[in-house]
Amino acid sequence: MTRLLESYAAGRWYAASAEGDPLLDAATGEEVARISSAGLDIAAMTDHARRVGGPAIREMTFHERALLLKELATHLTGLKDELYELSLATGATRRDSMIDIDGGFGTMFSYSSKGRRELPNSHVVCDGDLEQLGRTGVFLGQHVYTSRPGVAVQINAFNFPVWGMLEKLAPAFIAGLPSIVKPASQTAYLTELVVRRIVESGILPEGSLQLLAGSAGDLLDHLGVQDSVAFTGSAHTAGILRQHPSVLHGGVSLQVEADSLNCSVLGPDVTSGDPEWDLFVKGVVTEMTAKAGQKCTAIRRVIVPAAAAEEMTEAITARLSTITVGDPGDESVRMGPLASLGQREEVRKAVEALRSSADVVHGDPTSTTGFAGDGERGAFMEPVLLRARAGAVEPHDVEPFGPVSTVMSYDSLDEAVRLAARGKGSLVGSVVTHDPEVARTLVLGLAPWHGRILVLDRDDAPESTGHGSPLPMLVHGGPGRAGGGEELGGVRGVLHHMQRSAIQASPDMLTAITGRWTRGSERTITPEHPFRHSLATLRVGDTIASEPRVISREDIDHFSDFTGDTFYAHTDPEAAAQNPLFGGIVAHGYLIVSMAAGLFVDPAPGPVLANFGVDHLRFLTPVKAGDAIAVTLTVKQVTPRSSADYGEVRWDALVTNQDGEPVATYDVLTLVAKEA
Amino acid sequence: MTRLLESYAAGRWYAASAEGDPLLDAATGEEVARISSAGLDIAAMTDHARRVGGPAIREMTFHERALLLKELATHLTGLKDELYELSLATGATRRDSMIDIDGGFGTMFSYSSKGRRELPNSHVVCDGDLEQLGRTGVFLGQHVYTSRPGVAVQINAFNFPVWGMLEKLAPAFIAGLPSIVKPASQTAYLTELVVRRIVESGILPEGSLQLLAGSAGDLLDHLGVQDSVAFTGSAHTAGILRQHPSVLHGGVSLQVEADSLNCSVLGPDVTSGDPEWDLFVKGVVTEMTAKAGQKCTAIRRVIVPAAAAEEMTEAITARLSTITVGDPGDESVRMGPLASLGQREEVRKAVEALRSSADVVHGDPTSTTGFAGDGERGAFMEPVLLRARAGAVEPHDVEPFGPVSTVMSYDSLDEAVRLAARGKGSLVGSVVTHDPEVARTLVLGLAPWHGRILVLDRDDAPESTGHGSPLPMLVHGGPGRAGGGEELGGVRGVLHHMQRSAIQASPDMLTAITGRWTRGSERTITPEHPFRHSLATLRVGDTIASEPRVISREDIDHFSDFTGDTFYAHTDPEAAAQNPLFGGIVAHGYLIVSMAAGLFVDPAPGPVLANFGVDHLRFLTPVKAGDAIAVTLTVKQVTPRSSADYGEVRWDALVTNQDGEPVATYDVLTLVAKEA
Repeated sequence: MTRLLESYAAGRWYAASAEGDPLLDAATGEEVARISSAGLDIAAMTDHARRVGGPAIREMTFHERALLLKELATHLTGLKDELYELSLATGATRRDSMIDIDGGFGTMFSYSSKGRRELPNSHVVCDGDLEQLGRTGVFLGQHVYTSRPGVAVQINAFNFPVWGMLEKLAPAFIAGLPSIVKPASQTAYLTELVVRRIVESGILPEGSLQLLAGSAGDLLDHLGVQDSVAFTGSAHTAGILRQHPSVLHGGVSLQVEADSLNCSVLGPDVTSGDPEWDLFVKGVVTEMTAKAGQKCTAIRRVIVPAAAAEEMTEAITARLSTITVGDPGDESVRMGPLASLGQREEVRKAVEALRSSADVVHGDPTSTTGFAGDGERGAFMEPVLLRARAGAVEPHDVEPFGPVSTVMSYDSLDEAVRLAARGKGSLVGSVVTHDPEVARTLVLGLAPWHGRILVLDRDDAPESTGHGSPLPMLVHGGPGRAGGGEELGGVRGVLHHMQRSAIQASPDMLTAITGRWTRGSERTITPEHPFRHSLATLRVGDTIASEPRVISREDIDHFSDFTGDTFYAHTDPEAAAQNPLFGGIVAHGYLIVSMAAGLFVDPAPGPVLANFGVDHLRFLTPVKAGDAIAVTLTVKQVTPRSSADYGEVRWDALVTNQDGEPVATYDVLTLVAKEA
Repeated sequence: MTRLLESYAAGRWYAASAEGDPLLDAATGEEVARISSAGLDIAAMTDHARRVGGPAIREMTFHERALLLKELATHLTGLKDELYELSLATGATRRDSMIDIDGGFGTMFSYSSKGRRELPNSHVVCDGDLEQLGRTGVFLGQHVYTSRPGVAVQINAFNFPVWGMLEKLAPAFIAGLPSIVKPASQTAYLTELVVRRIVESGILPEGSLQLLAGSAGDLLDHLGVQDSVAFTGSAHTAGILRQHPSVLHGGVSLQVEADSLNCSVLGPDVTSGDPEWDLFVKGVVTEMTAKAGQKCTAIRRVIVPAAAAEEMTEAITARLSTITVGDPGDESVRMGPLASLGQREEVRKAVEALRSSADVVHGDPTSTTGFAGDGERGAFMEPVLLRARAGAVEPHDVEPFGPVSTVMSYDSLDEAVRLAARGKGSLVGSVVTHDPEVARTLVLGLAPWHGRILVLDRDDAPESTGHGSPLPMLVHGGPGRAGGGEELGGVRGVLHHMQRSAIQASPDMLTAITGRWTRGSERTITPEHPFRHSLATLRVGDTIASEPRVISREDIDHFSDFTGDTFYAHTDPEAAAQNPLFGGIVAHGYLIVSMAAGLFVDPAPGPVLANFGVDHLRFLTPVKAGDAIAVTLTVKQVTPRSSADYGEVRWDALVTNQDGEPVATYDVLTLVAKEA
C-alpha cells in the first residue's frame, strides 16, 4: 500500500485513522498515495489559526509579511526538481508543471514586491482621500482597511495543486490572515509535498498555514463573521457552499471561482494573411491542450465572423493534428492525460451533450488508442473541436473540462457580444483584432461579463502571456456563472481579505489611529530642523515652519527669462488682466514650489538623501507681485524599507500667503537614512 | 376607503386589481392608504428597465447623469412641504423627517458633486495604475469599471421611505443602472409620493426608476447575472433572499444591510466632569429616541467602564426622563410613535427577551398612557433603558427595533473590544474618548467588526453628525450580522454597481478602449502647438516634443542662489560626491520641471487658461551639469466640465536626457476653454 497523505493541523502532522482512498497516477493508473481526514480535529485547526497563526502574522507589518513570502518563494525555487518529478503523476507535462509550480512561486514573488511597494510598512491601510465632513475641518472621515482576526479557508481545485494554493495564500498572508488549505484529493499529494517543505523551512510563523488532506468534514461549521472561504471548483459545489448555514446566516464571506465558458473572439478585420489570424489559431490550440484543457480559463467558445468560420475551423483542425498526446514524461508529448479516468468520463459526457447542437469536426472523444501511453489505464484523450449549428444552446451552457472547444460564428459585432454574453459571466475573454474601433466595441461590450479580457494583436503578441494565464497583478474571477469572486489583482487581492471601515474623528485622533499625519492635527516644531533627523528619531508631525518671503515682480520676470516660461499670465500685464482666473500678472506655479523649497531645505549633508518626487500638487490661490509666501513642512508618513538602510518620508507641504490663504498644497517625497 | 397606492411600471401608473391592505397612521391608527401589487406585470418592469431605462442612462456620461441628480434634488427640495406633511403619518417628528427627506436630497446633491469631481466625464472608469506586463512595455494591463446592462432592484425598509430610496438610487443611477424600487408597505405612501413627483418632473429618462408598491411577487425570478438586489431589512428576510435560486445559481448579486447591534463605548479616561461625558449621554439618548429608535444605526449596546457604569446609567436615565413622547405633529414632542402597533409589539417582545439577562432601569415598555397622544390607537412607547447582568447573552443577540438600549460594563480595553465583537458585525460603533491611545486601541480593535466608527470628543463634537447618521461620502454597511453589504461611500458606492475587468492590451488598444492616452501609444505631433487648441479641437494623443536644452553648472548655481535651495547636492561638489544616489552635483528637481515648462509652454493668450496642478511627479535619473533635457507633453485625458465653459486637460509630461533616459515623469493639469 502507498503512503497515506498527512494533514498539517495545529502544529503537527496528522495521519488519518483510516486506510484512505487511493489516488492514481493520471498516465499509468498506478497508485501514488492514499488520502483520508478521518479522525482529524478540525475545530482544533480553526482554533490554532485564530490563536496562534493570526496573531503571529499580524504582529508583523505588511512589508515584513511580504519579505517572508519572498524568502519562502526563493527557498521553494531551490526545491523545484522534486516538485516537477511528482507533478508528472498528475498528468502534467513539463510545460504544464511550469504554469503550476513556477507560476505559483512567481505569484509569491509578485505579491512580495507589490506588498512592499504599494502598502505602508505598518498595519493599517488608508483608503482614498480624507473627507472633510464639516465646515472648519475639525470633523473628518477617513476609510481604513484593517486585518480580520479570522481564518482564510481555501478549497482548491485539482488542476493546479501548487499555484492554486499559493495564489490564495499570498494575498491572505499579507492581509494578516492564517490559511487552512484543503486541496482537491486527486492531486493533493503534490500540495502536501509543498506544504511539507514550507513547514520544514520554518519561514512562516507557526499557524500561518495548515493543510487539510481529505474530506473537509464539518470545517464550515467552525467558521464565523471574521472568516472567509475561497472556493475554486464546480458551480454545483459552489451552490452547496452558498447554502451552508455559516454562509447564509453566520456571516462567513464566500468567494467563488467556478465554471466558465470563456470565449475568444476573432475580429472581422482579420483575414488569413494577417499575423492576428495565426495568433488566434495558436491561442485556441494552446488553450485546448495546455493542462489537457483542464483550466478554468481555457477557451471553450471560439467566436469567429461567419465569413471566416470555415477557414478558421480548418486552420485550428490542422494545428490540432500536430499535437502528440501521451505520457507527460515523454519529451515529444505536447499534451498529457486528463487528471483521472473519472475526469475523462466527465468530459466525454460533456461532449455528448454538446453534440445536441454542435458537430465534432476534429478528434474522437472515445478513442483509447494512438497515444504515447496506455489509453486504457491512462486518462488520455484526443483534443476535440466542435462546430456549433445555428441556434446552438449547449455550447453556452456545458463546460467540458478538458481539451474541447466549439466554434461558432457571428454576423455583426453586436451579435458577437450577444454570443459572448450567453456564457452568463466568464473569467476571461479574448479579442483578436488589429482594429482599435473593433477592439473598443468588443471590449466594452464584453467587459460587464468578464473579469479579464485579453486584446491580442501583432503589437502585444511578443510579450503576451496568453488568454489562459491569470497574472498576480490582475484580477482573476468573473461575474455570474464564473462565481462572482475576485482573486489576485495585486493589492486588490489583499484588501478583499480585510475590512474596510469609515472612521469619523478629529484630525488628532485620525493621526493616532492611522499612524499617518492628518492635515489639521498637531504639528511639532522640533528644536532641530527635521532634515537633521534620521528615521530613528523622526516623528510623524515633526514640522518646519518657514519665514515669509516676498515674491517681487522682478522675481517673476527673472524666472520667466531664466526658465523660458514666458506664458502671458506671467509676462503680459494687459493679457493677464483678461485671464478669467488671474486678472493680472501672477507668479509661476513652479516659481512658488521652487521658492518654497528654498524656504524649507536645510542644506548641509545629513540623513535626507534626496527628493524623489512630488504628489498631488494643487495651486489654490494665485500669487501676485508683492505677496509674501511661507511654507510649512510636516512629516506625514514614514515608510522604512525593510531591505535597505533608508526609507521614504512623505512630507505635507502647505504654502500660504500673507493673509494665511493656502497658495499651494502638495506632498514632498524624500529618501531618508534609517540611522544618522 | 382610502386611495390605493399605485406602482409605476413600464412607463405607466398601475392600480392593482385588488382592494389592497390598509396602511395605518402610526400616531392615530387611521387608515392612510391601501396597498397591493395584485396583477402587476413584473416581467414587463425588468424588461422595461433593461430595454428602455438602462440604455437611456448609459448614453449619458457620468457627469451628465450626476447633473440630472442635482437638478432632481433641487426640484424635490421645492416640494418639501407636502412630503413633511405626509411624513407625519409614519410617526416621524419634524426632526425625524429632516433625516429622511432632507437627508435623501442631501445624498443626491453629494453624489452629484462627487460624480462630477471624482469620475471622468465619459463612460469607463480606470481603476489603479497601468501594469507593465512585459519587459518593453508593448503589453500592458489596466483595470476598468464598465456599466452593467442590468437592473438594480432595491428592497427598502419602512423606517426611511425617502432616504432609503434615494441613497440607493443615486449611486445606481450614476453607475448607469435603472432602478426598480420596492418600499416596505408600512410607509410606502410616502415613497410613492416622491416617485410620483420624480416622474412628473420628467428629469430622469423614462425607465430609470420604477416603483413596485406591494408584494415583490416573483421579481427575483426575473433577475440574472447583470442584475443586483440591494436589500435593507431583517436578517431573517435576508436569509430567505440568499437562498433564492437566482442568487444561489443565477449570478444575481445581493447586497444586504440587516440587523445590527451597534455599540457606543465610553473611554476609561472620561469622567463626569468631562465634555465627553455629556457627549456620550446625549449621543445615547439621541440614538434611542430619534425615529423612536427605529434606525439600523441606533445604539443598542452602551459599553462603559465598570467604575462609571452606575453613574452613567443614572445620567442617561435622567436625560431620558426629559423626553416627551407623543403625536409627532405636536411641537413639544421629542419622540413620535413607532411605525405601527405591530412594530410596538415586536419591540415589547424583544425587551422581554432582553430581560433574561438584563434589568429595566428606565421606562415601562407596556405602558399605554402618559403620552401626548392616544396610547391605544397610536404606537407610542416609552424609551426603555436596561442594565445587563454579568455574563449577559441576549443584549448581544436581540435587536429591539425601537427606543431601547442596554448598558453593560467592562474592566479593560480588551474586554470592551470583546464585548463589541459579540455583536457579530455591526453597521456602526462609536468611541467617546479624548485620549488618542484609547482611541487607537479601541478603533483598531473594533474596526474589523464595523463598517463605520465615530470617534467623538470635544474637538470634533461641534461638527459631528453623530453616531447614527450614515453620510453619502462614507461607506454604510457592516460585516457579519449587519449583512456584509456596503452602500454609499462616495464613488465606492457607484463602483459596487459596475463590473471591474482587467484589460490586457497594447498601449494603442488601451488608449482606444479607455479614451485616455496610455504611455507608449501613438503621439500626434500637431502642426499647431496643442496650447492653441480648445477642447473642441484638442485630441487625446496630441503632442508637443520640445528641443533639448543644456543644463549648465551655472544654471544650477544660479537656481540655488535665486530660490535659496542650497541643498548640498546642488552646491557642494565634495559632499555631493558622497551622496549614495547622486555621486556629484545634480540639478534641483524643481529646476528640471521649471525648465521643462519653459520648453513646452506656448506663451500667447489662448484657450489654455491655467496650470492648476501637477500629479505623480517622480525624478528618475539625476541631471548633471552638461546634460541636455527635452520634454514631451501629450494630451492624456480631457474632462469637459458639464457646467462651465472650460474643462480639465491632463497632460503626460516626460522629460528625457541626451541619452533618451527618463529624467522625470508627471501629469500636468490645465484648465482649457471649450471653444477657442
